[in-house]
Amino acid sequence: MDVERELFRRSASRITVVAHVFGLLALVLLLVWLLHYRGGLDYDSENSYRVFNVHPFLMYFGFIFMAGEGMMAYKTVFGSHDVKKLTHMLLHLLAICLGVVGLCAVFKFHDMESMEDVYSLHSWIGIGTFSLFCLQWLVGFATFMFPRASKPTRERIFPWHISGGRALLYMSICAALTGLLEKATFLDLHHHYESRLINFTGLSILIFGILVDLSVAMARYR
Amino acid sequence: MDVERELFRRSASRITVVAHVFGLLALVLLLVWLLHYRGGLDYDSENSYRVFNVHPFLMYFGFIFMAGEGMMAYKTVFGSHDVKKLTHMLLHLLAICLGVVGLCAVFKFHDMESMEDVYSLHSWIGIGTFSLFCLQWLVGFATFMFPRASKPTRERIFPWHISGGRALLYMSICAALTGLLEKATFLDLHHHYESRLINFTGLSILIFGILVDLSVAMARYR
Repeated sequence: MDVERELFRRSASRITVVAHVFGLLALVLLLVWLLHYRGGLDYDSENSYRVFNVHPFLMYFGFIFMAGEGMMAYKTVFGSHDVKKLTHMLLHLLAICLGVVGLCAVFKFHDMESMEDVYSLHSWIGIGTFSLFCLQWLVGFATFMFPRASKPTRERIFPWHISGGRALLYMSICAALTGLLEKATFLDLHHHYESRLINFTGLSILIFGILVDLSVAMARYR
Repeated sequence: MDVERELFRRSASRITVVAHVFGLLALVLLLVWLLHYRGGLDYDSENSYRVFNVHPFLMYFGFIFMAGEGMMAYKTVFGSHDVKKLTHMLLHLLAICLGVVGLCAVFKFHDMESMEDVYSLHSWIGIGTFSLFCLQWLVGFATFMFPRASKPTRERIFPWHISGGRALLYMSICAALTGLLEKATFLDLHHHYESRLINFTGLSILIFGILVDLSVAMARYR
């Protein structure tokens, strides 16, 4: 049984490493797309498309990637349990802050182009996910950090915190993929290099999400 | 601790009931969309759009809904463990069969309209998910049904079967949402009734997926 556990520990840590690889691959592909094909990113630009480009960058790198790293902090950070927990909390807080800027960027873009806000499935899923994410952070903070709840309460909330976090991760992946597809459809790209680049970016984000989820899930079976 | 367990058992069974509600709600919304706004569905029609409509219907009701019901079979089916396991396997087999017809429908539509196949992120995610789903079914069948593997092997594969199944569920939800969004973007719908109907259908499918996942996840903590 100890051999089994050791095997599991090793596969779980291997999954965490591969998750990092796909997380960074998605970041590189996204940057190649935004910088090479889409004219770069600048929140204060007068070119509305450069303002828009801040949105996918911050929603992936600022929000999803940071949240994923936060979820894996218990495996990747050295130190005591409290250090891991603090890193977990801070990375999620960072994800919320960068996510807010990313959301502002797309509303600014809509203002500049006089476009409607919040009509597509992407925006509904995205805003729903972001709101529930903030709620999950607040409940998690009040339960596990300050004012820390009693042990029975913490034990009761723990499974919901884990399962809710994993559901939110997948919801944010759904938001990212619908967003990429919406943009690709608007641009009316078919079998071009750019279209394939967007697809590979989406696939890398999906695989990152699955691997972060698996690395958390596998820890439950040890 | 027994009170805790009883509370958990009750929340898990409540989640399963609500999952059914959202699964059926998504089906009703999808049918209203396809029958009222999109001219109905017919695989043998000469109207290519009626052929296309078979695709979203079967990929949701045939594939995702059946697979979700299959995942929850251990909670919803009365009888011995073997009866539950057989139902679990058969519902997933049915999902594969209906999924194949759903996939054929969209290729037939592309043929009729002389459109390119497999260029969008939706199609990449969809085909990837379907292929991995068939692989998961085959590995599951060979490990847990016939020729049943030895106990240590079954125990080693079990966590991967559960976690892989949950990942595949979310991948299929991603495929469904990107598909709905792609169609909505092609139709260039904004703040119309139809656009909102598609969004609510997508949200119901997402909530169905999350609840199926939670009902499986919560069972792990009992």
